[in-house]
Amino acid sequence: MSLIIQKYGGSSVADAEGIQRVARRVVATQRAGHQVVVVVSAMGDTTDDLLDLAGQVTDDAPAREMDILLSAGERISMALLAMAVDSNGSKARSFTGSQAGMLTDVYHGEARITRVSPTRIQEAIDDGNVAIIAGFQGMSPESKDITTMGRGGSDTTAVALAAALNADACEIYSDVDGIFTADPRVVPAASKIDEISSEEMLELAASGSKILHLRSVEYARRFGVKLHVRSSFTEQEGTWVIPDEQETIQLPEGQPMEQPIVSGVAHDTSEAKVTIVGVPDIPGKAAEIFQVVASSNTNIDMIVQNPSRAGAGATDISFTVPLDQTKEAIAALRDAQAGIGFDDVTHQRNIGKISLIGAGMRSNPGVSATFFDALHRAGANIDLISTSEIRISVVTAEDKLAAAVQEIHNAFGLDAEEEATVHGGTGR
Amino acid sequence: MSLIIQKYGGSSVADAEGIQRVARRVVATQRAGHQVVVVVSAMGDTTDDLLDLAGQVTDDAPAREMDILLSAGERISMALLAMAVDSNGSKARSFTGSQAGMLTDVYHGEARITRVSPTRIQEAIDDGNVAIIAGFQGMSPESKDITTMGRGGSDTTAVALAAALNADACEIYSDVDGIFTADPRVVPAASKIDEISSEEMLELAASGSKILHLRSVEYARRFGVKLHVRSSFTEQEGTWVIPDEQETIQLPEGQPMEQPIVSGVAHDTSEAKVTIVGVPDIPGKAAEIFQVVASSNTNIDMIVQNPSRAGAGATDISFTVPLDQTKEAIAALRDAQAGIGFDDVTHQRNIGKISLIGAGMRSNPGVSATFFDALHRAGANIDLISTSEIRISVVTAEDKLAAAVQEIHNAFGLDAEEEATVHGGTGR
Repeated sequence: MSLIIQKYGGSSVADAEGIQRVARRVVATQRAGHQVVVVVSAMGDTTDDLLDLAGQVTDDAPAREMDILLSAGERISMALLAMAVDSNGSKARSFTGSQAGMLTDVYHGEARITRVSPTRIQEAIDDGNVAIIAGFQGMSPESKDITTMGRGGSDTTAVALAAALNADACEIYSDVDGIFTADPRVVPAASKIDEISSEEMLELAASGSKILHLRSVEYARRFGVKLHVRSSFTEQEGTWVIPDEQETIQLPEGQPMEQPIVSGVAHDTSEAKVTIVGVPDIPGKAAEIFQVVASSNTNIDMIVQNPSRAGAGATDISFTVPLDQTKEAIAALRDAQAGIGFDDVTHQRNIGKISLIGAGMRSNPGVSATFFDALHRAGANIDLISTSEIRISVVTAEDKLAAAVQEIHNAFGLDAEEEATVHGGTGR
Repeated sequence: MSLIIQKYGGSSVADAEGIQRVARRVVATQRAGHQVVVVVSAMGDTTDDLLDLAGQVTDDAPAREMDILLSAGERISMALLAMAVDSNGSKARSFTGSQAGMLTDVYHGEARITRVSPTRIQEAIDDGNVAIIAGFQGMSPESKDITTMGRGGSDTTAVALAAALNADACEIYSDVDGIFTADPRVVPAASKIDEISSEEMLELAASGSKILHLRSVEYARRFGVKLHVRSSFTEQEGTWVIPDEQETIQLPEGQPMEQPIVSGVAHDTSEAKVTIVGVPDIPGKAAEIFQVVASSNTNIDMIVQNPSRAGAGATDISFTVPLDQTKEAIAALRDAQAGIGFDDVTHQRNIGKISLIGAGMRSNPGVSATFFDALHRAGANIDLISTSEIRISVVTAEDKLAAAVQEIHNAFGLDAEEEATVHGGTGR
């Protein structure tokens, strides 16, 4: 008998009606002949509400207690969903992350899964139950404490269980119809992708697409799990995300084998650009700079080095960092300025990053040409550039971002014939 | 070092402010030189809200899932309280009922404690922590499932821990100042009792007093735990409930040793009276009747048998039952009417039970006289009467209840010089 893992996000179980809707789908899946394991998030905004409550009590909560608090949200939704499935005629049992065998490290709030031992889950489904598991949480065997996994934790729980239980598929449900060729709120002409490789999905997620969390995509890719990203509000097929070895990309008929296959355009406004001006052109200086930035625990994305505007014998180094880490990075650099000997450090917050993702873009000069031409038509400057085998990214001024994304989407033939229906979904 | 258990009810932790207030008190208690273990209920109306949510999803929830759902409430408040204690400068760790070693039977929703093994709690407090435990819940070692204990469960958790940890006292906090000589909302002249025996408290709780649950009083009595019932909103002493062997009742100066010591007057409007008219005066008939009532799972309180109004050779049997079990009891009796041979079964819903409780009432004819005289002055009829060594109860018509309670309270010298301050507390 086939086994399907289904993950339902907070918007799918936002209220009693949503829970009932999900329960009916779960029971229908079981009746179609599958074993079903469900991973569920907290209802609606529960996690944020609990965080808010904690903030009213203290602004420095012990991490152990915060995880105990936050894990309550999923416990509530899992129990309610089990009740709803039962009332629809199927036996159901709910399990905490700990009871489901999700073992993690000790890092509260951002725990990583170390092992999955879903013995009780296997017993439950072999006994004809629907097993319902609280997402986002696990247990550290070292401390015997409950841990939560950070953003994307519920998706990761689902993928981890799919891998451990050897599931045939892992369905990720939210309030959007699937992965789109671009954000439909920015590009109305965006269309739903039917199938995409894990590798491309990884790049999309890393480049700003918010539907699937990077972490769960990587987990799926590494363990060969097939993901199906779809809406809990319709019966339509969503987007299949297939691990690379299993991929069967269909070339449109008549298209030459060497044509690049472009999957989509992502954008990201969550970064700032930091520029260190006038770095002495001496070996080792760049390394010192990045050590300083690393010591402030800042994540660096794109990096570019240019001859300095300041004059000969110096370079300018620019890189992008998350907006909310910019202050710390700059402070650390200013502290080190005298020691390293650069002239200045400047930053720019209103930038946007545009990424074109596609499987067949390697060694294809036509792609870069079309890409930069589209940027030019949109009036967008080209600041930093970064490429990989399946991605081209540029940083440009934020005010031209939407126009540039639309132009690129159009230039690569991604525009749909009809506009995408935007449910106003958040993708949760 | 002395050890104090403190139990805080839902009204004490109804919001962030209440949680902070409780945290300050907990820390102050620790700083005064005690080890402190706290048992906490769910915030405010959380339990009722969760029940309501479940009701929106289904009206026949599996018991296992209901317990998982309800236990979330205490987990939220215990984590928030631990955060608040920590922010007030004391180390704190929260524990679920299961982690605290509260082992129970398998009866979901009304689980009974089978064993208490508070090893982790002892370690935590010996390590200088305040230990905070979720009340109302435990774990069944047989099924490995979470169980909840029914009404009064948090009080019982606290008393059970006090017994298992050999605590010096168990403080029960709510929004009322203590146990009163009568319900202050019915008798404005009621006053706070300073000290009362467990045995009398048992009678008071069984007779309608709602401050302490019968079950936790019985547990305290059996295991010799001293209870201190007080308000979390003031620093004043509340009511000490002392196990009988430890009791030191102070007689007012000059009072003869044989004078009855009356503790208080309780009333109860939650029962109905059922009368079976014309029961054949044949050996075994009464037993048949009570077997029928027992088979409908109805709790019987007071019983009275009188020669029947219907005629010689028959008796009328009356008894009181909870209002919400009356229909089932009568239905069961009607089904058995032909077989047993009685004439009719009638019932009366608007009755009230008044109970006078006191340690020294045995063999004191003056007590009954004063009691019935007060009832007469209030214009209250005397329907059923029932007595024990420390209690006299009568059933009377509900509309005279308040007046009767006030007269009795006054007749036994219980009226305070000033009126009690009623905070509008619920006692939770």
